[in-house]
Amino acid sequence: MSQFINTRENLVNEAIDGVLAISDGKLTRLDGYPHIRVVYRTDWDKSKVALVSGGGAGHEPAHVGFVGEGMLTAAVSGSVFASPSVDAVLAGIMAVTGPAGCLLIVKNYTGDRLNFGLATERARAFGLTIEMVIVDDDVALPDLPQARGVAGTLFVHKIAGALAAQGESLETVAEAAREVIDGVVSIGMSLDTCTVPGSPKEDRIKPGMAELGLGIHGEAGIQQVVFSSAKEAIEQVVERLSPYTGNGQYVALLNNLHGHFNGRDIHPFAVHRKSPHALQDKGIPAGLFKATATSSELIPS
Amino acid sequence: MSQFINTRENLVNEAIDGVLAISDGKLTRLDGYPHIRVVYRTDWDKSKVALVSGGGAGHEPAHVGFVGEGMLTAAVSGSVFASPSVDAVLAGIMAVTGPAGCLLIVKNYTGDRLNFGLATERARAFGLTIEMVIVDDDVALPDLPQARGVAGTLFVHKIAGALAAQGESLETVAEAAREVIDGVVSIGMSLDTCTVPGSPKEDRIKPGMAELGLGIHGEAGIQQVVFSSAKEAIEQVVERLSPYTGNGQYVALLNNLHGHFNGRDIHPFAVHRKSPHALQDKGIPAGLFKATATSSELIPS
Repeated sequence: MSQFINTRENLVNEAIDGVLAISDGKLTRLDGYPHIRVVYRTDWDKSKVALVSGGGAGHEPAHVGFVGEGMLTAAVSGSVFASPSVDAVLAGIMAVTGPAGCLLIVKNYTGDRLNFGLATERARAFGLTIEMVIVDDDVALPDLPQARGVAGTLFVHKIAGALAAQGESLETVAEAAREVIDGVVSIGMSLDTCTVPGSPKEDRIKPGMAELGLGIHGEAGIQQVVFSSAKEAIEQVVERLSPYTGNGQYVALLNNLHGHFNGRDIHPFAVHRKSPHALQDKGIPAGLFKATATSSELIPS
Repeated sequence: MSQFINTRENLVNEAIDGVLAISDGKLTRLDGYPHIRVVYRTDWDKSKVALVSGGGAGHEPAHVGFVGEGMLTAAVSGSVFASPSVDAVLAGIMAVTGPAGCLLIVKNYTGDRLNFGLATERARAFGLTIEMVIVDDDVALPDLPQARGVAGTLFVHKIAGALAAQGESLETVAEAAREVIDGVVSIGMSLDTCTVPGSPKEDRIKPGMAELGLGIHGEAGIQQVVFSSAKEAIEQVVERLSPYTGNGQYVALLNNLHGHFNGRDIHPFAVHRKSPHALQDKGIPAGLFKATATSSELIPS
């Protein structure tokens, strides 16, 4: 063994069990796992718009770690790097959707689009009101017809989640989510590739170099770059984002998507280019926008 | 560069600046850094017992990450793996100590004992009321005359912090801290050694093996063991702890002390062997003890 896991087959379910065990009773899962992995809020009364997201596992804390007050109502987890089934997504929708409806937040990967899309159709056939948004913040591969959803998804969870918690309508929540998606750009940078449990690790990134634009499943990036400091590394990131940003203020998110399963670091960088004031005018709590910066301020001095 | 840092010299100060930037104004630092690195609560009015801890940097979130309501009042950070100076500790004490006094929580390393001890004497000479406790939870090296302070320190921060927040006296807070220290045992287990910025990494742990009892500065452990699963690995940990535990209930802490600077995982395992009910009788909030387990329950089924 080169990782602290039991079996690859039961890895995701055990990880979810762990999250539930420390949730202080605030989270639960649907019966019927291991094939359906839905985690949702125990205090949910369906009186407000439900937010459901999900996707493949192996990106923890996404997605189960984002379930809670002011963010997701439920998360549907697939296997490691594999989209959840249509049945699983539908089960998640059914568990939390009431008269106020449900917003599905989906990252732009083929399997997720397909399975969340089919689940949406089936849920609508049951008479539920569902909206779906697709997050496609990654700018690493500008010629890719289907830009990937990466760290920028957090802005959607947080902002749509805040509006839903305030009791806004599904229409308002979905519109805000689409505005956020329209305004967020991101690119990854990492010193190392990711590890998939049970698979050999690819030594793609040369020692002393950083890869720009890599994907969250180990997909190769667009370029390996040298850098003399963290500041210079961030400058290269900001340069890649700058064609997509204007002169306004930005909400910056610099995160370390450290996968519990991957055991190595990956660092997507996201910038939300909407003016925070414009979003505050919509009733978004100001606290969400404390970490604002102008473009030049993004580069630490 | 093989890490996202600027210079080794300014690494710790920049990390602290980052914590302050996202603290939403709740934390501040003393002027006078880089040589004095003290972070403390901006809302602190000295009306309650202050809790001050600290030590070498490179173990983040220890110690600055533990400053906040119900935990530490101030943290004093040294350089990477180097104890803060007497002046720095004294500055931390002076910044937060009022008539209710101050409890210093020190891990059992020679430099920390010395510098926190001398700072205590100097603070007392200024007329302040100071108590100092030494955490020595590590059981990896039973013949070591000075058992190391490791993950068990979190129990001290949390429990003494809860009592201090309730307005208990320094005597009560210090007594509880000593009881916690008397009751906590821990041992580390890791698949990898740590990385020190600017230094080559030691490849001591063989692939597929785990080292038991390693120290938090890269010190070699007592044994490298094979394991077939996470369950079996934890069984070996629990076996090492069992001579020190009785038949009662335990509060278990299984943590991943992922160092921002180290870039690799280290997994100290701590068990608090006092009955949680006995501590609840002292007025400790029950919520601190939700994750209790009997000895056999510590081993996942």
